[in-house]
Amino acid sequence: MKRIGILTSGGDCQGLNAAIRGVAKGLYVEFGKDVEIYGINDGYRGLIEGSYQQMKPDDFSGILTLGGTILGTSRQPFKLMRVMDDNSVDKVQNMKENYKKMKLDCLVVLGGNGTHKTANLLSEEGLNVVTLPKTIDNDVWGTEMTFGFSSAMEIATNVLDCIHTTATSHGRVFIVEIMGHKAGWLTLHSGIAGGADVILIPEIPYSIDSIVKTLEQRNKNGKRFSILAVAEGVLSQEEASMGKKEFKAARAKMPYPSISYRLSKEISERTGQEIRVTVPGHFQRGGSPCPYDRLLATRFGAAAAKLIADKKYGFMAALQNNVIVPVPLNEVAGKLKGVPADSDIIKTARDIGISFGD
Amino acid sequence: MKRIGILTSGGDCQGLNAAIRGVAKGLYVEFGKDVEIYGINDGYRGLIEGSYQQMKPDDFSGILTLGGTILGTSRQPFKLMRVMDDNSVDKVQNMKENYKKMKLDCLVVLGGNGTHKTANLLSEEGLNVVTLPKTIDNDVWGTEMTFGFSSAMEIATNVLDCIHTTATSHGRVFIVEIMGHKAGWLTLHSGIAGGADVILIPEIPYSIDSIVKTLEQRNKNGKRFSILAVAEGVLSQEEASMGKKEFKAARAKMPYPSISYRLSKEISERTGQEIRVTVPGHFQRGGSPCPYDRLLATRFGAAAAKLIADKKYGFMAALQNNVIVPVPLNEVAGKLKGVPADSDIIKTARDIGISFGD
Amino acid sequence: MKRIGILTSGGDCQGLNAAIRGVAKGLYVEFGKDVEIYGINDGYRGLIEGSYQQMKPDDFSGILTLGGTILGTSRQPFKLMRVMDDNSVDKVQNMKENYKKMKLDCLVVLGGNGTHKTANLLSEEGLNVVTLPKTIDNDVWGTEMTFGFSSAMEIATNVLDCIHTTATSHGRVFIVEIMGHKAGWLTLHSGIAGGADVILIPEIPYSIDSIVKTLEQRNKNGKRFSILAVAEGVLSQEEASMGKKEFKAARAKMPYPSISYRLSKEISERTGQEIRVTVPGHFQRGGSPCPYDRLLATRFGAAAAKLIADKKYGFMAALQNNVIVPVPLNEVAGKLKGVPADSDIIKTARDIGISFGD
Amino acid sequence: MKRIGILTSGGDCQGLNAAIRGVAKGLYVEFGKDVEIYGINDGYRGLIEGSYQQMKPDDFSGILTLGGTILGTSRQPFKLMRVMDDNSVDKVQNMKENYKKMKLDCLVVLGGNGTHKTANLLSEEGLNVVTLPKTIDNDVWGTEMTFGFSSAMEIATNVLDCIHTTATSHGRVFIVEIMGHKAGWLTLHSGIAGGADVILIPEIPYSIDSIVKTLEQRNKNGKRFSILAVAEGVLSQEEASMGKKEFKAARAKMPYPSISYRLSKEISERTGQEIRVTVPGHFQRGGSPCPYDRLLATRFGAAAAKLIADKKYGFMAALQNNVIVPVPLNEVAGKLKGVPADSDIIKTARDIGISFGD
Repeated sequence: MKRIGILTSGGDCQGLNAAIRGVAKGLYVEFGKDVEIYGINDGYRGLIEGSYQQMKPDDFSGILTLGGTILGTSRQPFKLMRVMDDNSVDKVQNMKENYKKMKLDCLVVLGGNGTHKTANLLSEEGLNVVTLPKTIDNDVWGTEMTFGFSSAMEIATNVLDCIHTTATSHGRVFIVEIMGHKAGWLTLHSGIAGGADVILIPEIPYSIDSIVKTLEQRNKNGKRFSILAVAEGVLSQEEASMGKKEFKAARAKMPYPSISYRLSKEISERTGQEIRVTVPGHFQRGGSPCPYDRLLATRFGAAAAKLIADKKYGFMAALQNNVIVPVPLNEVAGKLKGVPADSDIIKTARDIGISFGD
Repeated sequence: MKRIGILTSGGDCQGLNAAIRGVAKGLYVEFGKDVEIYGINDGYRGLIEGSYQQMKPDDFSGILTLGGTILGTSRQPFKLMRVMDDNSVDKVQNMKENYKKMKLDCLVVLGGNGTHKTANLLSEEGLNVVTLPKTIDNDVWGTEMTFGFSSAMEIATNVLDCIHTTATSHGRVFIVEIMGHKAGWLTLHSGIAGGADVILIPEIPYSIDSIVKTLEQRNKNGKRFSILAVAEGVLSQEEASMGKKEFKAARAKMPYPSISYRLSKEISERTGQEIRVTVPGHFQRGGSPCPYDRLLATRFGAAAAKLIADKKYGFMAALQNNVIVPVPLNEVAGKLKGVPADSDIIKTARDIGISFGD
Repeated sequence: MKRIGILTSGGDCQGLNAAIRGVAKGLYVEFGKDVEIYGINDGYRGLIEGSYQQMKPDDFSGILTLGGTILGTSRQPFKLMRVMDDNSVDKVQNMKENYKKMKLDCLVVLGGNGTHKTANLLSEEGLNVVTLPKTIDNDVWGTEMTFGFSSAMEIATNVLDCIHTTATSHGRVFIVEIMGHKAGWLTLHSGIAGGADVILIPEIPYSIDSIVKTLEQRNKNGKRFSILAVAEGVLSQEEASMGKKEFKAARAKMPYPSISYRLSKEISERTGQEIRVTVPGHFQRGGSPCPYDRLLATRFGAAAAKLIADKKYGFMAALQNNVIVPVPLNEVAGKLKGVPADSDIIKTARDIGISFGD
Repeated sequence: MKRIGILTSGGDCQGLNAAIRGVAKGLYVEFGKDVEIYGINDGYRGLIEGSYQQMKPDDFSGILTLGGTILGTSRQPFKLMRVMDDNSVDKVQNMKENYKKMKLDCLVVLGGNGTHKTANLLSEEGLNVVTLPKTIDNDVWGTEMTFGFSSAMEIATNVLDCIHTTATSHGRVFIVEIMGHKAGWLTLHSGIAGGADVILIPEIPYSIDSIVKTLEQRNKNGKRFSILAVAEGVLSQEEASMGKKEFKAARAKMPYPSISYRLSKEISERTGQEIRVTVPGHFQRGGSPCPYDRLLATRFGAAAAKLIADKKYGFMAALQNNVIVPVPLNEVAGKLKGVPADSDIIKTARDIGISFGD
């Protein structure tokens, strides 16, 4: 009898349940009645506290299109420092003990960057771990694509579409703030798909001068409106040249709920134009996964089941050149996949006249 | 030859183009080649400044599903005071002169409450005016329904749906701020359709005590999460008892971009729970009209054409008991249709356990 | 302790689960722990065969947006003849016995026209029955609106939208066949909302001559394409003048899977134009209910709970002038609500140049 | 002054206008005012007949989300035989002459497989040609992805979703027929994303025995329903072993409008179960492109403009390993990209228990 534990960790996103279903269906096809699947509640917290239950095949039916995660999730249990403190050590110890108590053959972990750091740690501590890359940010190293990203991109693009009609009708400038603290994938893709005129991403620090110039040029060309797609994690060129401490201090003083409001104020002061800000927020992470994400999550899930069948532990199922491949966890952990400067898509955007504010 | 002017005024919403198309198709069927339609640009501003152009039948093709307004729009040209100032008088004079210069037989106006005040004024000044009620707020007096409302309700509900999956997965409390400064229709309808646990609307001032009690009760019943649908124009019971000046002064000091952030802080301080706020904003007014709004806008448009054919001027096309009827402009102007205290739908909501925070 | 049974009968549609949830939430608010709800499986069949189970409050969580019915459904158990045969009598007897065995205080029935005949019969046989009107056809007597209709209208309109782009690009004539055997509501509403040029409904028998004339007129006016929205239950003026037997015999010989193919052939022979047929079929009845249907179904459900609390049995919850009211079952049973000849909406359609093929 | 012609050919699909816009924006950024763009009407037909017009920059505004093609399209002008007949030769001659008359520097062609044969022919005849791969079938050789495919996949999956709720509620077997005469990409992707139990594609001939066995096994496992996603171009194993003539003759006798009806009859006779068929048809090709397709089409369009700037003629813009690359037209023409037998995605599907009827 194989005993497999499964948990979802970090911010929820679309496709988690589709991936869970993929893992389960794959395991049932592979092992038939010789497998027991245990759902661990609320991410790593459930593993630390020993909160879990055995799942029945029926639990995985009808969840392909369901948003969120049937297992619950929670934030990472510890910020992994170079040197872990006692509290962290205890938590790791708890997880190892519960893994043993549950007599698991493998732990399947669905999560993003933080989750993968912890998953790699558990793997290094000797647990059998297989992971799936989920996040709307698409910033997990080693895979071209994470599930959740495409669904979030559809929502963000849809917001841009809706703002477009208002911007056109009123002749206004709009800022749409799109999720993404460190990586600009979501803003870049939805910005182009949604017809944004200016796209600001964390990988390309912006200059207010450049943005203002673009807006003025559009006015000159008779364009009544402009739309800026702005990642929540953007920073100015000045900020980019600051040290980490200095930057944090500067931001701590920023009297705005988010960067878009600062941008709005700065641009409005310079151009005299009224600027409207829209912050769709968590909305981008919820709801039913789009068909592409369901397919991708299912592929990742089935691949995880295969890895378990082959006793290939310590890997993340990843997409590379459109094929699912295993990538060692220690290659994934601690890295971030940002938009590269020579990205084909950034070039495309520039080629059709989109400004990156640089 | 009939000469008809048409303008869209105030905030844009879904269905404006469908309504414009309905007016045009109705006029062409009624008058054939004996009608000329003039599109007036950017709302009343175009009438004041004499900015307009003759439309061709093709201009009204393919716009049934198009968001925004092909004519452009702008804010009301003057806040209608009990006593108009010289500037206002001049603007009214300009509009009358341009109406005459254009040799119009009738002016068709699409707009909400502010727009109708002005439309009534022009009608009282002797212009032939026919209007259509548009607004996502559904707060125009004399009609059961305005176009734009259903589309906005679908968007707001969709936001609630998406937030639901995140709230469930993380076990959090979420506030979703929905448009509506003075009327709670949009929040009420989408709140029920989106499964909100607490609905706050301007018509029912809230008490933090009551809200906190509801949330605590849900916790006791084992509910991991709660969702509050909050109209942007809500006020507390204390605020409701203030005079207008006192209220304005109090609000001016409020250090939050909108009421939801204040609510979030107050509830979080009382319950110790983390609260997340989502403000979809202008997103709710944009994009393609939903099928119901296209049908309703088309019906209003066709009715306006009929009124013109019958030379029945000074009316708004309205929906009453599911039939389109004309309502005199002077009955509409200056009134607001809020959610009545004995509303059938509020009763429904209470009957299934939804709290209104009162 | 109140004991309430609930069943869904006839073809499934959007909003059934929302209505079930509304009933349950209403009962729990009304009676607290003093109510037990029994789900009866697969429509009346479950009542005949005694197949049911007690529901827990959790069973009604998270189903507001879920398509289909968690209780299952089946066709009507017997075609209600003027004189029932022995088999029918036995089935009625079984239902009465199981109702008693289950010690029900009331049976809540969700269904369309056929379902209401049986519900009324059971009521006349002495059972306590309360019903809710569901059907995408919107043809239940006594209520302005049934739930399911708006969702199906959105789907049918969306199909028309998609066909529109192909029709425009290729300059073709398209027939879209929309559900509705006896009533044309769905075709009428989605036809207008989807910009159809010709709308054919069962209530208005068509003449091929008239249709061909309309298409030729459009060609003359330079329109490259035409779209016909056709209810599956339409008949020609010749067929309308036939006796029932003669009509059935004629249709039995029709060598087409559905009426649209016959229309396609006839029109194509007359005009020389190529005609494409699209039959979305059951697709129109499935998927998540639209926000309007969720609200309406919830209102009906809450009203049913109120009727039970008031011991008002033998009623259907209905919408009249936008308020929920009880309508006696014996007024509903056996009647069909078709589109009236003097319908405000048909007039609108004609006023903007839509042809009904008559 | 650069003079660029652009045409769209073959069946329309989502993203054509987004691609046209991408080409235009790319050209305007590259050449500024030194470029004139000519829209050729209704595909190659416009080039044969000399029907075209000069486009203005404004013509390309607001079309990013618009379905269909603003240029119109038509079927291929000639079936390219090994030996062309006189009529074909004349048409080619006409195209060359009009190309010269229009003084074009390059012709941009958007289309699928048939279109590319002709494009290659024109290139071999000495015209400067650049192409973009469009089709919902995703079967163009040399590119991982064509635009239109993702949008059609979303629609087909949505149909499967809707059918799912009805199938579950009624306990029925449903066949959903999905577009794809020669390639199974659309059925394969949407089948997995939509949770189909059996997927039939042209690349894997089916056996009724195998399908029946799968359905019976599902019944044994207590599954009340089954959904078959069937490509319109599937054939049985017997048919696959026939010669081309024999196959055509056999199909010509088939008394069904499409293969799904035959399957339905055969399965129903063998299992005694009622089978429902849904054929969404052209609906799958229409409507607004999904965000992914808008991005992809924009990238292809921008790449085409770059090729023109670099005077690299005779190429198709293609996606390979997620980067846009040029592929010589003569490598593309006349080939079909079917789903390979060792496809990673087919393996995934089998790994989670989906049957391919083989």
